[in-house]
Order: sequence, then structure tokens, then C-alpha cells
Amino acid sequence: MPAVWDAAARASSGKVRPMSYQDLLDEIAREVRPYFGKGAVAGYIPALRRVPVTKFGMSLCTVTGAVYSVGDAEEPFSIQSISKLFTLMLAMSMVGDEIWTRVGKEPSGTPFNSLVQLEHEAGVPRNPFINAGALVVLDCVMTHAKDVKSTIRDYARVLSQNFSIDANPRVLRSERKSGFRNAALAYLLKSHGTIAGNVPRLLDAYCHQCALEMSCLDLSRALLALANRGLSPVMGEAVLTAGQAKRVNSLMLTCGMYDSVGSFAYRVGLPAKSGVGGGIVAVMPGEFTITVWSPELDRSGNSLVGVQALQLFTQMTGISVF
Amino acid sequence: MPAVWDAAARASSGKVRPMSYQDLLDEIAREVRPYFGKGAVAGYIPALRRVPVTKFGMSLCTVTGAVYSVGDAEEPFSIQSISKLFTLMLAMSMVGDEIWTRVGKEPSGTPFNSLVQLEHEAGVPRNPFINAGALVVLDCVMTHAKDVKSTIRDYARVLSQNFSIDANPRVLRSERKSGFRNAALAYLLKSHGTIAGNVPRLLDAYCHQCALEMSCLDLSRALLALANRGLSPVMGEAVLTAGQAKRVNSLMLTCGMYDSVGSFAYRVGLPAKSGVGGGIVAVMPGEFTITVWSPELDRSGNSLVGVQALQLFTQMTGISVF
Amino acid sequence: MPAVWDAAARASSGKVRPMSYQDLLDEIAREVRPYFGKGAVAGYIPALRRVPVTKFGMSLCTVTGAVYSVGDAEEPFSIQSISKLFTLMLAMSMVGDEIWTRVGKEPSGTPFNSLVQLEHEAGVPRNPFINAGALVVLDCVMTHAKDVKSTIRDYARVLSQNFSIDANPRVLRSERKSGFRNAALAYLLKSHGTIAGNVPRLLDAYCHQCALEMSCLDLSRALLALANRGLSPVMGEAVLTAGQAKRVNSLMLTCGMYDSVGSFAYRVGLPAKSGVGGGIVAVMPGEFTITVWSPELDRSGNSLVGVQALQLFTQMTGISVF
Amino acid sequence: MPAVWDAAARASSGKVRPMSYQDLLDEIAREVRPYFGKGAVAGYIPALRRVPVTKFGMSLCTVTGAVYSVGDAEEPFSIQSISKLFTLMLAMSMVGDEIWTRVGKEPSGTPFNSLVQLEHEAGVPRNPFINAGALVVLDCVMTHAKDVKSTIRDYARVLSQNFSIDANPRVLRSERKSGFRNAALAYLLKSHGTIAGNVPRLLDAYCHQCALEMSCLDLSRALLALANRGLSPVMGEAVLTAGQAKRVNSLMLTCGMYDSVGSFAYRVGLPAKSGVGGGIVAVMPGEFTITVWSPELDRSGNSLVGVQALQLFTQMTGISVF
Repeated sequence: MPAVWDAAARASSGKVRPMSYQDLLDEIAREVRPYFGKGAVAGYIPALRRVPVTKFGMSLCTVTGAVYSVGDAEEPFSIQSISKLFTLMLAMSMVGDEIWTRVGKEPSGTPFNSLVQLEHEAGVPRNPFINAGALVVLDCVMTHAKDVKSTIRDYARVLSQNFSIDANPRVLRSERKSGFRNAALAYLLKSHGTIAGNVPRLLDAYCHQCALEMSCLDLSRALLALANRGLSPVMGEAVLTAGQAKRVNSLMLTCGMYDSVGSFAYRVGLPAKSGVGGGIVAVMPGEFTITVWSPELDRSGNSLVGVQALQLFTQMTGISVF
Repeated sequence: MPAVWDAAARASSGKVRPMSYQDLLDEIAREVRPYFGKGAVAGYIPALRRVPVTKFGMSLCTVTGAVYSVGDAEEPFSIQSISKLFTLMLAMSMVGDEIWTRVGKEPSGTPFNSLVQLEHEAGVPRNPFINAGALVVLDCVMTHAKDVKSTIRDYARVLSQNFSIDANPRVLRSERKSGFRNAALAYLLKSHGTIAGNVPRLLDAYCHQCALEMSCLDLSRALLALANRGLSPVMGEAVLTAGQAKRVNSLMLTCGMYDSVGSFAYRVGLPAKSGVGGGIVAVMPGEFTITVWSPELDRSGNSLVGVQALQLFTQMTGISVF
Repeated sequence: MPAVWDAAARASSGKVRPMSYQDLLDEIAREVRPYFGKGAVAGYIPALRRVPVTKFGMSLCTVTGAVYSVGDAEEPFSIQSISKLFTLMLAMSMVGDEIWTRVGKEPSGTPFNSLVQLEHEAGVPRNPFINAGALVVLDCVMTHAKDVKSTIRDYARVLSQNFSIDANPRVLRSERKSGFRNAALAYLLKSHGTIAGNVPRLLDAYCHQCALEMSCLDLSRALLALANRGLSPVMGEAVLTAGQAKRVNSLMLTCGMYDSVGSFAYRVGLPAKSGVGGGIVAVMPGEFTITVWSPELDRSGNSLVGVQALQLFTQMTGISVF
Repeated sequence: MPAVWDAAARASSGKVRPMSYQDLLDEIAREVRPYFGKGAVAGYIPALRRVPVTKFGMSLCTVTGAVYSVGDAEEPFSIQSISKLFTLMLAMSMVGDEIWTRVGKEPSGTPFNSLVQLEHEAGVPRNPFINAGALVVLDCVMTHAKDVKSTIRDYARVLSQNFSIDANPRVLRSERKSGFRNAALAYLLKSHGTIAGNVPRLLDAYCHQCALEMSCLDLSRALLALANRGLSPVMGEAVLTAGQAKRVNSLMLTCGMYDSVGSFAYRVGLPAKSGVGGGIVAVMPGEFTITVWSPELDRSGNSLVGVQALQLFTQMTGISVF
């Protein structure tokens, strides 16, 4: 029974209950029920609207190899912006610090796909998690990979050790049709010379990475290296250096939750990345990764029930980086 | 000999030397020497230019009561924006969550004293650490205190248990003369109705809080409650709730270092707040506070040698929230 | 009977009636009646709300000395932003083209008192008719005049040959109380070094010029030099050079009507300047000046009935610069 | 000998020489010589750089049928943004005032192809002469025309009665390659729903209209209806209503010269539209159109020698709308 937080919890409050991670996930799954129906499924990608809104899954993997799950934790969902994590990790392992000459590392302070910032900052996106930044990072991978779409998919497969991961064809078609704003971003970046590759090919690859489907368990396994100084316990080898893992975690904490970075840092207090498919993956450095999935979104575009579940988790355990 | 990081350090790298905090501070003081002369003292407050640029001090206080210092750690310096921490903590203890109806909690993404954001967001500053936000927080304190200037000064005195803390009259005069931009911010906020009090009085109080002088040791002691779930080991009582302490720490990490939040989160990885007087105070939750002072600033307005010193500290110990 | 437009009018449309200017003003006064009650009196200056909303006056003065009036054409009203014309003309006659090193000549494209533009353009206001630009122009006059308030008032008196013109004390008090936004602008300009003088004194003078009261007849007479290549037929001497008069007219056409410059250029097609007191003065170069007053404003802050009256005038006569 | 300005000129200044339009154009052609070599040919469209920089032509057509030309007035050049006039006139004749529900009528205050404005104003471009607005107008024509490219070309042909007008294939290829910024604008507009048609087809048609080649004489003839209340003396029929012609003239004066609208209104004082090919067409309502061509541009993207030539013209004649 891993109960690492007991000491801290007991010290700070008598109300915190010592319980196993499994009991905790079960309890959270019960407590979030009243929150269903209070958000809205992402409207701009029609195919995402077909997912039942009552889906809920959660999966926690520790660096020591333990796995705890609840609900629909093994059902694949559309990872959407969480894919930006994979592309970033891949680009960092391909070109190292060179990537930071083309994309910034600072919070954006504006909605996630703003063009204003690009205009004022000469085409250098503020960070790799706003859409503009993700396109630049993807362009970097595209320059170094023969087939960028399968390279990213295979990277997700290897990291999670699940070789059935693939893009959902219906979501893919849906993304392609509605991606006008990303096209605007990509052409603006191209006009500034920040993107080297062919824009339609880049947009196609971007749709593909967003349409990848993974389960909570897949994601928790795949990103465990971020909790373990770059070393993947699943693969048994380093996928990033310790410094690179720290970099990704700090970027998630300062830029990973769209326009709710500050609110999430307080309510949850873990580095995390969310996607409009309703997934959120969070990292407790040195300890574990935890992924939650529930399709309904709050106003900032983060899973409403997902944020609630992670908040309960950190409240009940007293665990957070703060 | 506190050597809590040894296990982690050993696990991650053979190069990390186990040493006491005191040895570590002594070592850092030696290693930062080549960095003197590479920054520039804040130009816009004439009185600050009189401080010798080779000043360097560092002070670490643990939640268990240990204190480690090096260099000019006991020499008072102008705390400037670090004072925003005291005003925020005071406002939180006075009005609780009500403060968040008047100021936001998200990173700003633009230079620290931007008016653009205020204009676009109807006079609600993005967070309490940009100047506009700090003015709103101060206005809140001013509404609840008889004499706002002495109330804030006394709060700093009690938290640090140093009753000689006061504002430097020369810096105060210097601030008053050059504060046109803050006057613009304050009147803009007033025009939006975000500020209740008298503007000249508010600006006078703002200059006063910025002109307070404290040493590294004072600051490390005064803010120890942030590392200890709101409980001040110095005063032996709670100055904030555990939730409020977490809130302040998360705000420091996402908004505390001007336009270098992301870069600092990676290089150092601790919640921190800096001031143009060259001070930086950082918090390792559950463990300690650490303050560094060196007057020369980098382009973002943070102490150049100070950031370097904190980076060395986290590199050598492997300690950070990530 | 001046009927200079007859030829043009007949050429373009059989419906245009040849009539004297006096018949025309009388007809317009009848036709605008249904438009009363559709706008709103400026709310932010309480004293202006006391003016009866059914007030309506119009006065046309030709360069050859003829005068035509209707309604409340001789009743003084608060000229507000129309005063920017006097300050500009005064500054041009004092320092010539030097004024254009401190203020621009281009349309602003944003609401009239925007701070965003100042921030992005290093403190140089886009044109003399946005509030920031008017403050810079006033600062220039203040530098060259012993008593800036009486200098501007006396300039309006001499131009109109009406020596009873003065500021309304009640409006003056009202302006002073609510001028927080102008204070923000002035301090921002001061922080950029665009303003040389003392800010509270400048703001006081600005309130004073806005609170001046003049009638339609006063304004039409005072600005007749703009229709006559700089030569005032009233005073019998040049108040501006021909080039300066052309400059002021072109500035009015491109920047004089807040955010409705393009709409007004089409609907009316005359260089004009409006004020939130409900006055609009317009110029037909080579021919006449025409002033209308009616207190209710449209969404852009221009007199709703006033714009309608001027539109009727240009429709009925076929007269406009286009 | 048309010398309509004599009276006015004599009245205002003894220095203005009465001379025929032909003498005037000849004189201007001599006086502008020192200005060659002081500007720069548009760099972003490679094919435009092949035009000899000493080219200079000027052509004036009166509403009564007289034609005056000098220099390379009959040599076709790339009309570029002047084509926006044709598309606008065509759209106005096709859909009337409906066009103003999709594009604004106000000056933009920002560089001509800004995305910021679109972002802040929900995808409605400020006016039809910024690139975003021109794309929306073109989309409107595309909706109503079978073959948009030949429809616009044929419109220019009929208006000027020159049936050899066509797009330059080399310029066309050059535009297509470098049009990333326009692609960004078009996709952003598409994402806002402001554009109905297919984006690549729209961009292709936009390149085509910009690559049309016309001479000074062609342009002066084609746009004569704007000086004649909508009636084309060349075609002998109305191409716009008198109100529409006034609208286009007022839009040219307030929005036609990129970021130099105010400066051009003062220096020249005629409604005008320029293109980066070095052409400027100007209108004196009721009198004439005048077109000048010289390839080198000033910082605002207007023909440097062209602006100088038009300024000389209005200085020497005293003719302007102000």
C-alpha cells in the first residue's frame, strides 16, 4: 500500500484520510458524479460530439511500477493537444536545445491560438503548447523524419508499449474540415519564415497527431519518464535527459492548461497538459503520472470533471509540488 | 548536517556532491564571482544606482529552524516588488478569497506593467504581481487599514521579527519622482472602478512599500510560512491557511519573475518573487525559504547573479519542485 | 440668395430643390424632429445631463460674410472636444510644424481615448484629436503661454469676436471629478517624456478648455478661417497660413469624428469636428462653415440629430468635398 | 486651355502660375527628377524588381473628355492594390449596400495587412482597402460571378475601353509563391465565417487581380466615373450611383493610402488609391482623375515620386478637396 503522503497529510490536517491509491481513485470516481452535465463537449470538432458525456476514467502509474485505475481507464479517446507533449519530447530528443531558437518558453497570457502575439513577436510563438508553437515544433520533427505522421504515432506506441495506438479516421476528417484557424496560424508562421516545411503537409500531420487515440493507462505509462528524470520505467531506458524532463514539467506547469494555468496550479498544483478530447495528464515529479478522462469541458477548454477529479486527488492526499 | 537531497542526488547523478547547506552557500558565493559586471543596476530609480554592484548575500532558513547565510546576507536592501508578496498575504488574511474578484490569477504574458491588458480586460489586472495587480491589492489593504503604510511595514516587521525594518527615505523620494507609469496605471484602474481609494494616497503607499529595506535573512525568515503550509515557525502561529500558502506559491511560480517565468521555472524550478533592488526570495514547499541579493539585473529585470546562484543551488542539490 | 450649388444639384438629380440657405436650415430643423429621443446624452459628465435634449440649433457663415441660423443657434453649449481645434490652431500658430514631432497625423482606428496605441507607439499619439494627442498639443501651448487657460479662452473669444465666452463652472467641476482616464493618459505620456509640463496643471487646463461654452454662431464665426485659406473674414487677418488651414481640414476629415470618420465622410462628406456636448462644426473649403448642436449622442459619441442634419444638408444641396 | 483653378490660385497666392494642364504635367515631370533613387522597389514580389526604377508617367482625364499625358503614361504596369478599387466597384454594383455587412468603412490605424484587428473585431475587416477587406470583397464577387478572374479583368477592360488588359504571368507566379500572409488572412477570415468561398481559389483570384497590368491612361479613363457622380463619360453610362461614387471617394480619402492616409490628405488632398507597383490614381470630384506611376516606394509603400508629383500638382494649381 503506497501511502507516501501520510506523514505530510497527518501533519497538516486531521481530516485527510490515509488510504491506498486504489481506494482514492474509487472514492474520486464516486465524488465527481454530481459534476457531469455541467460542461460542454468541444463543439468545433463534430466527431468529438459523438462521445458519451458520462465517460470517466482515471489511471495512476508510479515510477516504481505500480498501476491503479478506475472507470473507463483503458478506453481510447482522442488525445488532441496532449499530443503536443509527444511532439515536443520527440523534437527535444532529435535536436536538443536548438528547438528553443524557434519557439519560446514563456506563458502566453492570451487564448491558446492567438495570432496577436505572433504578430507582435515577429512570428516566434510564446511556447510549444499554444497551437502556433506546436506547429513550429511539428515542423521541426517533420524536417528530421521521413514520415512524420507514423514517426509520432510510433513514438506514442513505444513510450506506452501499446502498438495498437492509431489516429481515428472520423476525427481526422473532422479536424481537416474545420482547421481554418490552424491554417491561418501556419501560413502566418510561414510568412515569418518560422516554418520550413510545406504548409498543407504540416497541417495534415497536425490533424493526425491530434486525432491519435490513447487510453488513460496508455498516457500514464507513456509519460512516466517525466516523473522519473527522463528515464522510462516502461521501456527501461532514458527518453529524455533529467534536465529535459524538468524542462517539460516546468513548461506544463506554466503553459499546459490553456488560459487556466494559474487557476489549475492552485487547485491542483501538478504539471499537467490537457486536450479538448477531455483528457488531462499530470505529473508528480519523483512519484507518479496520473491521467483522467471525461469529455465535457469548462470555459477554458479543460475537462470539467477531470480538473475536479485531480483537485480532489491533491486535496485528499496533500500531494502537490507546492 | 541537513543533507535531505542526498538520496535523490545520488540516484540521478554521480557528480552531485553531498555537502551541508552551509558548504553549498559558500561554494555558490565563490562560483558566481565571474558573473559580476554582466548586468545593469535598475536605472529608473536613481537612488538604487548608489548601491555597490558587488554586493552579494544569500540566506536559507528551514522550516525546522536552521539558518545558513553567506556574504552580505544581513545587509538591508530595497525589496521593491518583493513587497507585493507582503501586501498580497496581508490582503488574503484580511479579506480572504474576496481579493480574487478584483485581481486575476493567471500569467500575463506581457511586460510587467502593461496597460494593454488592462484595456482589453476591463480594468481587472491579470495577477497580483504585475504593477496594476499590486495596486489593486494595496487598495484593498488601504480600505481595511487605518494607516496603510505602517500596517504593511509592521506586517513585514512581525513576520521577520525584525522591528528596525523601515522605508529608505532617499529611495522613497526617488520613487515618487519617477512613478509616472504607476500613476497612469492607477488612474486607469480608477477609471474602471477597480480602485476604491484616493489615487495619490495609494501611489504614496505603493512607493513606501517598494522602498522598504530588508536583508536576505529578514526575507527568508518572514516568508517561511509559505514553505510551512501557512504556519510561521518564527512567530509560532498561522499567518495564512495551508490553501492560501499553496495559492501564493503557485502564483509565484506562474507569475513571480516578470517576463522570465518560464525560463526561471526551468533553470531553478522553485516558486519565487524578485524585485528590481536585486533581491529574489524562493520557496521549497515543506523544506525551506532561500533569499539571494545582488544588485545587477538581467534584461527581464531579475537579479542576474541571483538567478545564477539559485540555479547553481538547484543543480548542486537536485532540489526543485519538478 | 446664395444658391451656388444649383448647377451641380440640377446636373445630378431633378429632385434637388434650389432654395436659399435660410430656407434649407428651416427645412432641416423640421425634418430632424423625428430623430429626437433616439440617442443618449453623454453620461460620464454629470453636468451635461442637465441640458434639455430637445435643444437644436444650426448656424452657417459664408466666407463672403453672410450668416444663416435656425433654432437655438445663439445659445451657448459645452464645446468639449471641439476645443481641440482651438488648441491645435493655437499651437500651430505658436510653434509651426514643430508640433508634428510630438503628435502624429494619421487616423487612429481605435476608440478615441485608447491607451493601447500609445503603448505600442512609444508615447506618440496618432493625431491631435484623440485625447492623448490633444493633451500633447495643450502641453505645447502651456509651455508657450503664461496662463494657458485664459490664453485658450481668449483665442476663442477673438476668433469669434464674442468676448463673453467662458468655461461653465459646474461642467468644470464635473469634468475634474471624472477625468481619471485622461489622468491615466497624461501620466502615461509623461512617463514616455512626451509631456513637458506639470500633469495636474495640464489636466486642469484640459478640463477648462472642454468646459468652454460657445453657440453655433460663435463656432461658425470662429472657424471661418478654415474655409478661407487661413484668413479670418471676421477678424480681417490671417490666423493660419493656407497650408495650415488645409492641414486642419484634412485632419478633421480623417480624424475628427471619433470612430465614425469613414461613415461621416460618406454620409456628410465635409471636414468636421464633434464634441460630446452635442456640437459638430463642419467646413466647406472655399465656401462656408456650418455648426449644428443637439445634445443626444449616437454610439460613436457624435450628436445623433446633428449628423442627421448635416447629412440632410449635403443631400439637399449636393455640396460636399466628394 | 483648361485653367479652372486660376481664380482660386490668384486669390490665394501670387506665386501660382496659370498654365495649361499639359504644361503643368511637363513641368512636374521635370521637377520630380531629383527624387529618383530615393525610394525602394517593392521587394516581396520578385517580378516587380525587374521594372526600371526611372519609369515615370502621368495622365489626367477630365470629365469633359480632355486627356493630358506625360512620360510613360501609356506603358502598362502592375496595378496591385489599385485593383481593390475595381473589385469594390464591381461588388457594389452587384450587391449594393449588402457589402457593408461584411466589411467596415473606417480607417484601420494599423499596417495594411494586420491580423490583430481581425482578431479583435471578430473577423470583420475595417475597410475594403486593407488586404483582409479586399479578400472579403473579392469573395463577394466570386459568389456572384461564374469566372471571377475574367469577370474582374473584363470589368477593367470595359471601364477603360482597353481590351488588351491582362494579368502579367511572371508577376502572377511571383505573387502565388510569396502570398503566405494573404493565405493567413484568408484562412482567419474563413475561420470567422466571413469568407464563403474556397480559400485557394480566392487566393488565386486575388493574385490575378493584383497582377493585372494597366497604364496611367487606362486607369485615369477607367475611374473617371468616380469624378463624375458614377457616370462614366468613356462608356457613356452609369457604373455606380452618385451615392456609391461618393462612398468610394470618401473611402479612398480615409483609407486609400496604407499608413499615410493623413499625411497624403494634407500633402495632396485628393481621394486616391495606391499600389505597390508604384501607381497612384487620384480623383478630383466634379473635375478629373489623375494617375501617376513611378516604381520606387516610400516607407509606407506608396510611390515616392508619385506622391511628390501629385503634391506638386496640387501646390501649383491650388486644387484639392480642402
